Amino acid sequence: MHLLDYPVTFGDCDPAGIVFYPNVYAWFDRTFHDWLRRFGGHEALCRELGAVGLGLLEANARFRRPMRDGDIVSLTLSIESWGRKALHLSYEGRVGDNMTVAGTEVRGLFKPSGDGMVAGELDALRKLVEGDG
Amino acid sequence: MHLLDYPVTFGDCDPAGIVFYPNVYAWFDRTFHDWLRRFGGHEALCRELGAVGLGLLEANARFRRPMRDGDIVSLTLSIESWGRKALHLSYEGRVGDNMTVAGTEVRGLFKPSGDGMVAGELDALRKLVEGDG
Amino acid sequence: MHLLDYPVTFGDCDPAGIVFYPNVYAWFDRTFHDWLRRFGGHEALCRELGAVGLGLLEANARFRRPMRDGDIVSLTLSIESWGRKALHLSYEGRVGDNMTVAGTEVRGLFKPSGDGMVAGELDALRKLVEGDG
Amino acid sequence: MHLLDYPVTFGDCDPAGIVFYPNVYAWFDRTFHDWLRRFGGHEALCRELGAVGLGLLEANARFRRPMRDGDIVSLTLSIESWGRKALHLSYEGRVGDNMTVAGTEVRGLFKPSGDGMVAGELDALRKLVEGDG
Repeated sequence: MHLLDYPVTFGDCDPAGIVFYPNVYAWFDRTFHDWLRRFGGHEALCRELGAVGLGLLEANARFRRPMRDGDIVSLTLSIESWGRKALHLSYEGRVGDNMTVAGTEVRGLFKPSGDGMVAGELDALRKLVEGDG
Repeated sequence: MHLLDYPVTFGDCDPAGIVFYPNVYAWFDRTFHDWLRRFGGHEALCRELGAVGLGLLEANARFRRPMRDGDIVSLTLSIESWGRKALHLSYEGRVGDNMTVAGTEVRGLFKPSGDGMVAGELDALRKLVEGDG
Repeated sequence: MHLLDYPVTFGDCDPAGIVFYPNVYAWFDRTFHDWLRRFGGHEALCRELGAVGLGLLEANARFRRPMRDGDIVSLTLSIESWGRKALHLSYEGRVGDNMTVAGTEVRGLFKPSGDGMVAGELDALRKLVEGDG
Repeated sequence: MHLLDYPVTFGDCDPAGIVFYPNVYAWFDRTFHDWLRRFGGHEALCRELGAVGLGLLEANARFRRPMRDGDIVSLTLSIESWGRKALHLSYEGRVGDNMTVAGTEVRGLFKPSGDGMVAGELDALRKLVEGDG
């Protein structure tokens, strides 16, 4: 599990005075990249794995309570499962004792392929992450 | 159904050269607010309905193909269903003939309640939207 | 002077691999709002002062060195001068020993006026900030 | 001169109900990149010029009137002057007949240099832009 505190600021919020919801996914992504720093960070990992990025196949969030300017959101990232080509992650955000958001990401290892990109095998990444590299 | 074209710009993209995924939810939200303009826009509707906002209970996206600077994303919003307190919407994004993203939002009508907010009944909104107001 | 550290993340950066420059102004704004928390925060201050916001009249930044995913930017806010209706602030950002950005903001106290807004007198705010409230 | 209309959306605005000011710089940048499409776009130009990006040395904006959800901002980009290593641009934004913002950008052609980047000569870019390439 990986933890990250994020301080909500005025500019994260919308005219309703609460966090503009797409920003919550940016915090998931921020937590993910902060976790990657344990293994050298996204850029070094991608170079090592011959990938363009550890990108998104799918993401979901359930918003339980509004968050506001001045809140400190405590985010957790957990690995749910490793598929052959899909890494399943779950996230929770809390302000004080209250869970404010819960979500998931499914990520793939994007590799160049012709004009586009394909999701590559995750074995090498998994070994690095699980300390078996 | 509601349609909106969004031109992807450089600043929407990340170091992998593709759209930073939280922005896609901002386009869903943009399409929703553009749709609301048919009925006076978010601010006028909320004033009429005694609400703070038509906010998110849940959102999901499945990313099928990367999008880049210069792409024009054709977004569609469809109403999936009206719950008593939850409006289910679906979205699709296309670049040319290719579907690049598909997603859903579940929205509630946030009303002030003590220190927080509760999701109110959607009847009045539904009548406005369905022209029975 | 007020200090705030901001950890740069992947999503703050653009396809050139460096921080997308508008985000730097969001960090100035974040530092400003963090400073306001000493005095109760933006919302409480505005309520007290009968204002809609402490908004921008002008802003400037000079970008000295690129910033990247993983950098910790140490931001400082300094009050340059109090005009009758304009507060002049300066900002600097550093990564390690290197100044990466320097900038200024001119802010006014936006008060409702008919359909629009006007910049109000800053005396009351200045007293609160200088502890003479 | 180059023109671009940008429709302001709910998510561009902050709890004061007006555009969060860093977004205005993102619209300047969007207008710049839209202009570059005349010459093949940022990515193709940078590849041709051996550059990482046409990045910012400095940017300024003066905010004249607040902008809101639903406003269409008509943006103009004008070339002010070509320095040897600095391109000076000016921007104006209007909603209807009212100028809402005016600003400037100074951009350089960022080229890789050791661990960092340097601003390269602009001659080749200028020729491309002025149709003398």
